[in-house]
Parts: sequence; structure tokens; C-alpha cells
Amino acid sequence: MIKVGIVGGTGYTGVELLRILCAHPQVQLTAITSRKEDGLPVADMYPSLRGHVSLCFSAPEKADLGACDVVFFATPHGVAMAQARELLAAGVKVIDLAADFRLRDTKTFETWYGMPHACPDILEEAVYGLPEVNREQIKGARVIGLPGCYPTSMQLGLAPLLAQGKPLVNELGLIADCKSGVSGAGRKAEISTLLAEASDNFKAYGVKGHRHLPETVQGLEAISGRKVGLTFVPHLVPMIRGIHSTLYAQLLPEARDTDFQALYENHFAQERFVDVMPAGSHPETRSVRASNMMRIAVHRPGNGDLLVILVVEDNLVKGAAGQGVQCMNIMFGLDEAAGLMHVPVLP
Amino acid sequence: MIKVGIVGGTGYTGVELLRILCAHPQVQLTAITSRKEDGLPVADMYPSLRGHVSLCFSAPEKADLGACDVVFFATPHGVAMAQARELLAAGVKVIDLAADFRLRDTKTFETWYGMPHACPDILEEAVYGLPEVNREQIKGARVIGLPGCYPTSMQLGLAPLLAQGKPLVNELGLIADCKSGVSGAGRKAEISTLLAEASDNFKAYGVKGHRHLPETVQGLEAISGRKVGLTFVPHLVPMIRGIHSTLYAQLLPEARDTDFQALYENHFAQERFVDVMPAGSHPETRSVRASNMMRIAVHRPGNGDLLVILVVEDNLVKGAAGQGVQCMNIMFGLDEAAGLMHVPVLP
Amino acid sequence: MIKVGIVGGTGYTGVELLRILCAHPQVQLTAITSRKEDGLPVADMYPSLRGHVSLCFSAPEKADLGACDVVFFATPHGVAMAQARELLAAGVKVIDLAADFRLRDTKTFETWYGMPHACPDILEEAVYGLPEVNREQIKGARVIGLPGCYPTSMQLGLAPLLAQGKPLVNELGLIADCKSGVSGAGRKAEISTLLAEASDNFKAYGVKGHRHLPETVQGLEAISGRKVGLTFVPHLVPMIRGIHSTLYAQLLPEARDTDFQALYENHFAQERFVDVMPAGSHPETRSVRASNMMRIAVHRPGNGDLLVILVVEDNLVKGAAGQGVQCMNIMFGLDEAAGLMHVPVLP
Amino acid sequence: MIKVGIVGGTGYTGVELLRILCAHPQVQLTAITSRKEDGLPVADMYPSLRGHVSLCFSAPEKADLGACDVVFFATPHGVAMAQARELLAAGVKVIDLAADFRLRDTKTFETWYGMPHACPDILEEAVYGLPEVNREQIKGARVIGLPGCYPTSMQLGLAPLLAQGKPLVNELGLIADCKSGVSGAGRKAEISTLLAEASDNFKAYGVKGHRHLPETVQGLEAISGRKVGLTFVPHLVPMIRGIHSTLYAQLLPEARDTDFQALYENHFAQERFVDVMPAGSHPETRSVRASNMMRIAVHRPGNGDLLVILVVEDNLVKGAAGQGVQCMNIMFGLDEAAGLMHVPVLP
Repeated sequence: MIKVGIVGGTGYTGVELLRILCAHPQVQLTAITSRKEDGLPVADMYPSLRGHVSLCFSAPEKADLGACDVVFFATPHGVAMAQARELLAAGVKVIDLAADFRLRDTKTFETWYGMPHACPDILEEAVYGLPEVNREQIKGARVIGLPGCYPTSMQLGLAPLLAQGKPLVNELGLIADCKSGVSGAGRKAEISTLLAEASDNFKAYGVKGHRHLPETVQGLEAISGRKVGLTFVPHLVPMIRGIHSTLYAQLLPEARDTDFQALYENHFAQERFVDVMPAGSHPETRSVRASNMMRIAVHRPGNGDLLVILVVEDNLVKGAAGQGVQCMNIMFGLDEAAGLMHVPVLP
Repeated sequence: MIKVGIVGGTGYTGVELLRILCAHPQVQLTAITSRKEDGLPVADMYPSLRGHVSLCFSAPEKADLGACDVVFFATPHGVAMAQARELLAAGVKVIDLAADFRLRDTKTFETWYGMPHACPDILEEAVYGLPEVNREQIKGARVIGLPGCYPTSMQLGLAPLLAQGKPLVNELGLIADCKSGVSGAGRKAEISTLLAEASDNFKAYGVKGHRHLPETVQGLEAISGRKVGLTFVPHLVPMIRGIHSTLYAQLLPEARDTDFQALYENHFAQERFVDVMPAGSHPETRSVRASNMMRIAVHRPGNGDLLVILVVEDNLVKGAAGQGVQCMNIMFGLDEAAGLMHVPVLP
Repeated sequence: MIKVGIVGGTGYTGVELLRILCAHPQVQLTAITSRKEDGLPVADMYPSLRGHVSLCFSAPEKADLGACDVVFFATPHGVAMAQARELLAAGVKVIDLAADFRLRDTKTFETWYGMPHACPDILEEAVYGLPEVNREQIKGARVIGLPGCYPTSMQLGLAPLLAQGKPLVNELGLIADCKSGVSGAGRKAEISTLLAEASDNFKAYGVKGHRHLPETVQGLEAISGRKVGLTFVPHLVPMIRGIHSTLYAQLLPEARDTDFQALYENHFAQERFVDVMPAGSHPETRSVRASNMMRIAVHRPGNGDLLVILVVEDNLVKGAAGQGVQCMNIMFGLDEAAGLMHVPVLP
Repeated sequence: MIKVGIVGGTGYTGVELLRILCAHPQVQLTAITSRKEDGLPVADMYPSLRGHVSLCFSAPEKADLGACDVVFFATPHGVAMAQARELLAAGVKVIDLAADFRLRDTKTFETWYGMPHACPDILEEAVYGLPEVNREQIKGARVIGLPGCYPTSMQLGLAPLLAQGKPLVNELGLIADCKSGVSGAGRKAEISTLLAEASDNFKAYGVKGHRHLPETVQGLEAISGRKVGLTFVPHLVPMIRGIHSTLYAQLLPEARDTDFQALYENHFAQERFVDVMPAGSHPETRSVRASNMMRIAVHRPGNGDLLVILVVEDNLVKGAAGQGVQCMNIMFGLDEAAGLMHVPVLP
């Protein structure tokens, strides 16, 4: 059994980790920290876990995280990088669901997250936890920076196009029109995500700039080996879970004869958590609700020069906790799908 | 034109007052105070009011509330009673949407609201702003304590039964199973009313006790002149606006031959904002959305001994801002429906 | 492996059966019938099942249901009773999610469902599939009539009160104010459950009478052995899944000293799918979302004479498909919780 | 008073017309037809109209539509063109909310709507009812083909860019990523728009082709006088009302120094129903809920070469009924905003 600790188990990605890990056949939940809730049974805060999780939250200094095999950080940005060194020294692997180990460039990190990076040397060895792109590096990683929810959908949605030897599309003019459920904003007391504000409503936000833009561009450039230009417009959908990314890419003349449906199917043929839908499909976010699956559909309206890629994922699973567990499975040599075979909940 | 001031115009009852008053033919919006938003155009906070409200929020000390004819308090409990004396001295009428002037008994007020009452003498003269019950007193009032949203629906829903000379039902064993949209909790940064918490979910709350219980009992006893016993169970509905109260009353044997449909229709025959629906109806909250109307249906399942009264209102209109404007109209001798004839928004 | 057939797998209880059964360790899905969708892969209709269910729908006459060990009917009322005799003759057990085998009295059935009963002799031997009440009979049953979603919550919520040797409450004056998500209406093209009709809205329905009333009274009388009077008022909540029943029972004077919290905890102490919450709790429907769990809280406001029982369940799981699988597990001597240990999905 | 008839008043655009027209100071509602609901009081179907609309539905042959000044068609495609000739002969003006008089080319109409056009000669004189583009022609029109809901938002959102003498953007590569509430699908019994299907869910649809594409291209080409290429991807949002269009346009090198904020503000400076928001704004659909207002924000992320235009409207008001009344006001020489000054309902 792998001994797992969770730092910051009170937010949505934390409770989602708990939902997945408490039923994972090879995991023993060992410690869940929360300074504020020290001593409170986890199931008192989340009655959905009654009978499934018997642990209490414990203050960080009381939790023996050093005895864990791996520790997940479901914390605000900045926490994981402050604690990583000590855990690594104790032989504990680290999987961060926040942004501390996502951006390779510390200046970019500082610009977007407003704090200096605490451990550039650890960042150096950290692996970006996107299994469908970095599986081999993840196997040997000690530190994982998990992708953001939007970046996961954008990178996997565009990967088959960009991973080719020659450009197929105008890689400097990509557009990602993304829509996310409200849980993406986290379990924080904020007016803008109150039901009375966000329900029966739709809006864009962050058009001027969003932290997930540099992360996604970094990832796409790593995939293509070429410079990438991306316009990213996120929107807030009045629903709890789910991300739908609508991606637009301008075909290059020399790529007009490509069979893009086949390209996508082949690219993901071995992937257990990426489902390329039949041609003409319109995947729904609910078709992956509460599961680690991503579904992708490839469209080329009017057989013209613009590709429209539709991508859906559950932002809390494939976009966060589930992807973290997928990385853990890979790191510890388990079946990559262990504990992750939830059937999506529909309706 | 009646000069109107609003203290605390940033919450939901505040913006609803603005929606109604900015289109009221006999009202001139004169001042809207908010210490925190001093100088901010109201329409910057609420773009829905662009082109309709040109005022800015102003700090209380800058706003010349003394020049108003009437001031609405859309504030937390405790604010109106602190400012009422000065306004009254300046000849300004006061309509409080919070609880400061609802409960006649200051000890009860202190028990439920956790603060001493600042002006028992003003409370003495205050009138409970439920026009269908207190219209005559409202006409001459200087201070109005507006009913809570739940109490409005419970009192008007039970009034025809209790207003008779002799009891028709077991007045000591009334039950009110009430359901409210989330805007009833106000525009406050709280986790429990986040969309990701409250959406696709249903729960009761406050079963042990709720501030609206003593207020409603006080009102029902004023209507009947007899002692009343009420069990009140509020529930949170994943919707923005609307209250649905399901009221249960046990018939007394001597009342079995009463025509309750006629009783209700007659009781409210002259009321412009209470609509007794045809027998057998199931009123929906959306049928009064964004309007000052209340709809009531009277049921007696199986022609048995239990009456089931269904009541719907928009908690922000008839349950708050609209009822406040209705009182204002009465106080200033205007048509009671002036500025209040909105057609409900459906769908 | 138990060979399972499903008749009528295209509705919400059907797809929920599929979600549960496709991951059940001791079940082999053998046939899913739908005349209309004959030949269509199940996963084409429900992409959420891609990779989990490889079966196609087949027309009833093509499906070899006689080779199954058990057949679930997730069909409109009247279908199961037409096919039960043939299946029983072939040694196949039958679990009906509709109403054909719920009501013991065929006249009551005919009154409420508008059709004569096709097989009163089979009805005679049918067992009402409420494991927490009828576990022993279910063990040996060949035919199960599964309780309705509302009746499950009402019966289990009141069972501890009624199962005592002497009445504790006024059993002739029980009240059930119930609230259900929209999936309870089924996957049918109807205007009243469109999102644009049912969203941001709340209403009661069927106050005059509802099919679940006679079923629940029958069940309560079986539990108590005494005559029961119940007023049942269902309401529609703008959410997908979940039932919240608020139950009211008038204490008898001789029961005033009872410890009702203990009574409930003891009554359900051995039950794996009924969770009596700590005193003072307000269970939420989402705390059981997509799971077979029921949660109950017992309140006695003001320590008075009225008990208020709060009950939540997922109408599609404990209120339908999950309870069906629970019965199947019992009938075939499996662990009662096999395939049913889903952690509720929250948020 | 203008005598108004409505053909097909039972759908969402019909009831929205009723909501607006029953409070219009210069309108007398004269007839509302529905063959199916002949004799039924309109307010029985829509209790929200109790006290506001006293008319009954009448069968078409009984309604004296010839006595009206103007008749609105809130009907399925094909109805208006079948009845227009007779009404015009009687001197009645016609405003069609469906597609019969939108597309100038009858072959395009037949391709997308699957029926031959019944009256090409009337189509010839029909005016496309987009006041901000065609105000002068609307003044003298006898027949109005009202724009679809999506096309209204796309055309007005792009008009300032396309209306210039020289192209500012790549007019052959425009992208419109549009999101609509569910009421856009109409009040029809369909599974896909049930609350249990469409709620807590998000999806694209019609990526291959949608009727609003040729209509919008026709309108954009009329505005620019040049050929236009548009990719239109509609999405379904789990909300009742509202359209949010996110429009992407590639700047031409020669337009890089243009002040687009000023361009938009100037273009719409005289318009009462188009609100160009301050630079950097993210308009929300609820900011126009139940009103005829459209709000637009202009973005140029990173000061790059891609313009991102955000447009919101209420699909039932500016996208349908409200725009129809706006046209009527223009046609009859009334104040263009008569009966249309509703303050948006927020929250």
C-alpha cells in the first residue's frame, strides 16, 4: 500500500482527491493537514465521506508527512514550494496541484503569481504532470507540477496537430475559447461565484490575460518544438464541474489533405483517458462528469481551412485530482488506471 | 416627486430597490450611501442599471439624507435604529428592510439578533409594514419595519384562517415548510451559498430556530388576537429568487363545512398584490418572478381535516423591496401600485 | 457471475442501472432491450458509458432474456407484469423498478395506474423490495416490486417511529413534505421539465393525490401493524438528482420522554445504507449524490411535541437502481453492498 | 392605440411579446391565435400574465386579424409566409419572428429550412428588422423579417468593423463562438433540453452547419459590401435566457493603429439599445436579462493582432420579441423605446 498524505484537504481539489484515493485499492490515506481544521474529522466537513474516510484533519506540524510515500498539495500557490525540500529529503515524492512547479521560467512565474520562486533547483528537476505527453519523465519523477485545468484541455486538444514534424496549422494564431464550471474557482468565499451571481448567467473573464496562458504556451511549444501564439478566452458557465474548450486552428495549405480524424485517433490510440469521438460528435461535459476521461471531437466546418476541436473534461478530475492520481500510479509503477475507472455520472 | 434616499444600496435588496425606484414615476432618487463604495457610480457596480441610474454611492456623512422625504435602509440589522432618530427629527420617514423595527418586544429582539435595541421609543411608534394587514397604520407611519421575506408569505398565507372571530384551525399546531432561493441569504461572500455548493442540491437549515419564527408568531397573533404555535422549517432551493411556503393547518371539527376557497377569495378580494388562484392550482415561484405579486392556492387533500396552503412570492420584491415601495406609496398617498406593475418575467 | 438483463435501458433508471452494474464485480451484463433502439450500441446513446458497456440494445424478441439469472425492468408501468410469467417459468428472477408489483391490492393498483393487473397470482408472491424492512423475504423472492423513490424516503424516515409496539406519534396525522429533483420525472419529452420551465423555479404538484401515497401508506401500515394517515405533498426542485423529505409527526404525550436520536441510531445500527446523522444535522441531497446512501436527521424543535425528520437520498440510486441492485445482491447471496460502495460526488 | 395581433402566442417568443406589449402604452392587444388552445384564457396557460392580459386564445379563423394594424408571427418557420399576402391586402403590417423573411435568396432558404418559399414577391419587399442597420427601410416597411437571436448579436458585434470603407480585419476569416441559454430552443417537448439533460452540462452543437450562418453572412455582407467568411460555433448554456457571443477578428496590418474602443463608441453613439462598455469590461448576460439592451466590449489581448469582441443580449428580447417591438415602434412613428425601457432584472 502506498502511504499518501494530503496538504490542504479542505478545498474542491482536496475533497476530490479524497473521493478518489479513499477507494483506491493500493492507497492508504495517512494524513490530511489543515491548520484551521486541526482535529476535525474530515467527514464532519464533508458528510459525503462518512463511512469512507475516518481520518481527522491535523495541523501540519502534527502530521508525520515524512512517513508518507507521496504527498499531494491541494493548496494555494506557494505552499508546495515552501515544503518540498524537506519532504524530498525524507524520501517523499511530491505532487503539486497548484502552480509552483508548472512554469519552467521563474521570471514568468513571478510575473503571473506575484511571488519569487522559493526553490528554483527543485523546479529544475520537477516534471510537468501531463501523462499523455510526459509519461516517461513522470515515471522517474520526484516532484510533479500538475497542469492547470484549462491547460490540460488545451494541450491535449492541440497536441496531435502540433506534435508533427512539420506545422499543419498556423501555430502562431491559435485560439482557445474555453468554458469552465464554477468549481474551478475553488471553495472560497467570494461574491462573484455565489449562486445568486453566477447562476442563470454567462460571461467571459480575464480576456486581458490569464495565468493559464503562459503555462499552455510553454506546453505547446514543448510539444511542437516551435514557437506558438495562442489567444485564450476563458468563460464562466453556471454549472458545478466541467470544462469545454473550443479550439480553433487555421490549416496551412500543405495540410489540406490530412485526415484529421485519423490523426487524432492514432495519436491517442493507446491512451486510456483520452477518447477521440466519432467524426461529427459534440461531446458534452456531463459525459465525463466525476471521471478521469477526456473526450475530443475534430471538426472542419464546410471542409474549409479552419479546424474546430471540441474538448471536454471534468476540471476536478482529469483537470486536477484525477490527473494527480494518474501521475502517482505511473510514479509507483501501478496500473495507470488504478482507482480511476469511475463511470461518469449521468444524468 | 418624492425624494428618496437609500442607505446600503450594494446588496440584493438595495439593487432591487434601485430597479424599482429608478422607474417609479413619482420618485426622484436622491442619495445612495455606501461607505465602502464612496464615489463609485452605482451603474459601475451594477451594469444592469447603466442608463437608468446616474447616481454615485456616497459616504453616509456626505449624503444629505436629511433632505429626503423618505429613506430606505437596505442594511444589516442594527443600522437603521442607529440613524432613525436623526432622520425623524429632520422630518424624514424611515423604511427599514432589516429587522430593527419588526419585533415589538425588545427582549425578543435582543435574543435573536444579539444586540440591544437602540431606540425602544421609536420602535414603539414603528408600524409593521404588511399592507394587507396594517394598511391604515402604514398611512400615518413615520417608521416602517418591513416584514421578512418568509414572514410575509407565512402571514398572508394564514391570515384568512386566523382573521376570523373563532378559530377554524388548530392555531397552536401550525406548520410552515418554506423554501427559498439563494438571494435570500444576501450578497455576502459565504461558502455555503456558492454556486458549487448550493447548486444541484437541496437542504433544510435552521430547524432548531430561525429569526423569522418569533416575527411570524407575533404577526399571526396580532391577526388572530389569540395565541399561536408554529413550527417553521426553512429550506434552501438552488434558484436565485422566489419563496414557496407550504403551510399546514389542522381543521377544527366545527370548521369542516367552511368553503375555504371562498374564504380566501373574499379575504383578498380588494388586494392588488395577492392573487388567490383557482381551486386545484399549484402556483410556481416563476409566476411572480421580479414582480410584487403573491399567489396563493388552497388545498384540502381528500377533503380531509388538513388544509394545505401554497404561497409564492419573489423574496426580493413582495418579500422586501417591492413591499417597501408599496408601503411608501401608501405613506405618501400615492396609488398603492405606482411603480409596481411589473409583469412577471417568464420564462 | 450473475447474468443480468435489462428491459428498457434508455431511461434514467436504466442508464443508472448500467452505470452501477457495468462496474459490479459479480455481474455480467447480458442483454439490454429496447424495441426502438434495436441494434444501437448503448454507448452511442450514452457516451458516458463508452469503454464501460459494449452491448447494443436489442429488440425484446431477439434478446435471450430467458438465459439471464435476473431481469430488471426499467420500463413504464405495465410492462413487467406482462412479461413476468414467462421469465419466471424460465427460472429467471424479476426486479421491477416500476409499480407493477408494489401495491398489494389490485383495485388500488387499477385506481391509480389506470389498468387492470395482469397477474394477481404473481403479485401475490412478489416481495416489496425495501431491504431495511423486508430483508428476509427478499432473500427468497422470485419477483421484487421496488419501492418508488418518494416512498423509500418516507418509509425509512418514519420506520423507527412506527416499528415500535405502541404508537409514539399520531399515526393518523403524519405529514410528508417532499422535494425531488427533475430526473424523477424520467427521460421523457415533456414541456414541464424543460430547463427553461423548471430551472430557477419551485412548485408543488399533485397535492390532490399522488400514486406514491397509497404505496407509502401500505408500507407504513405493514411496518406498524396499525392504520396510518398520511398527507403527502411533493414538490419539484430545480436540480437533477436528489430527494429531500421533511417529515412531521405529532408526539403522543406518553412518548415525550423518548430519546429519538437513540431510537433512530439503534433502529438502523446494522444498516449499511442508512446513516443517522448526529443530532442537529441538516443533511444535504448532494451528500448522497450518485450513491446508494440515505441520510436521516431527527429534530424536535423547541423540545416540543412535533418531530421533524429530514431524509435525503439519490432518487436514481437508493430511490431506484441502487436499491434494485441491493435487492439483487440479497437475492443471490452476495455481499449486500457489492458494487454499491460509490463515494458520493461532491461538489 | 395600435391594434396588435399575435399569431402563435404559446411559445417563449409569444409570451415575451405578451409581457412587453401588455404594458406598452400605445398598444391594444387585439387577438392572440392558437388553434390548439382556442378559447383558453392566455393567463390560464401563463399565470404570470394574470391581471395583465385578459384575452383568450382564439382559433385563427375566428380571430379578426384583418382588423389589426400589425400582426406578429411567433410561429414555426413557414406560417407567416402562408398568411402574409392576405394580411397585407387588408392593410395589416406583418412582423415575423421566424425565418420566412430573413434570407433574401429563396434557394438558400429552401436549403436550410427544407421548404419552398411561398411568396418570393413579398420576400422581395420585406425588410430585415435590425434597426441599428436598417432603420430607414424599417420606417416604410410593410413586412419585417426579424433577425434570429444569434445573428443579431453577431451582426451588431461586428458591424463597426465591417461598416468602414476599407477592410480593417480579415473579413474572410471571422469566428463567432456563441453561447445561448436554453429558451432559444423554444417551448417544445424535447429530451435534449430537459433540465435533467441540459443542466450542469455544456456542449457545442451544429458545428457542421446552422441556419443562422447564412443569415449572418448575408447581413455582414450587406453591412460591408464585401464578401465575408464566417465560422459559427453555437453552444448550449445551462441557463434560461441570454446569449453571449465571443467574436474573433484578425486585424489587417494597416488597421493596427485604429482606436477600436472609439470606433465602437462612435458607431453606436446614437443607439439606445446598444451599450458599448468601458474598455476592459466583461459584460454578463444577466446585465441585460429581460431587457432590450445589448452590451458590447472590445478587447485586443496583448495589443496583438486579434480583436476579441464580447456581446451579450437577452435572446428573447433584443434577440426576438423586444426587437420586434422596436421595429413596430419605428414603423408606426412612435418613440423607438416606447414600452421597451425595462430595467434588467438582477440578480
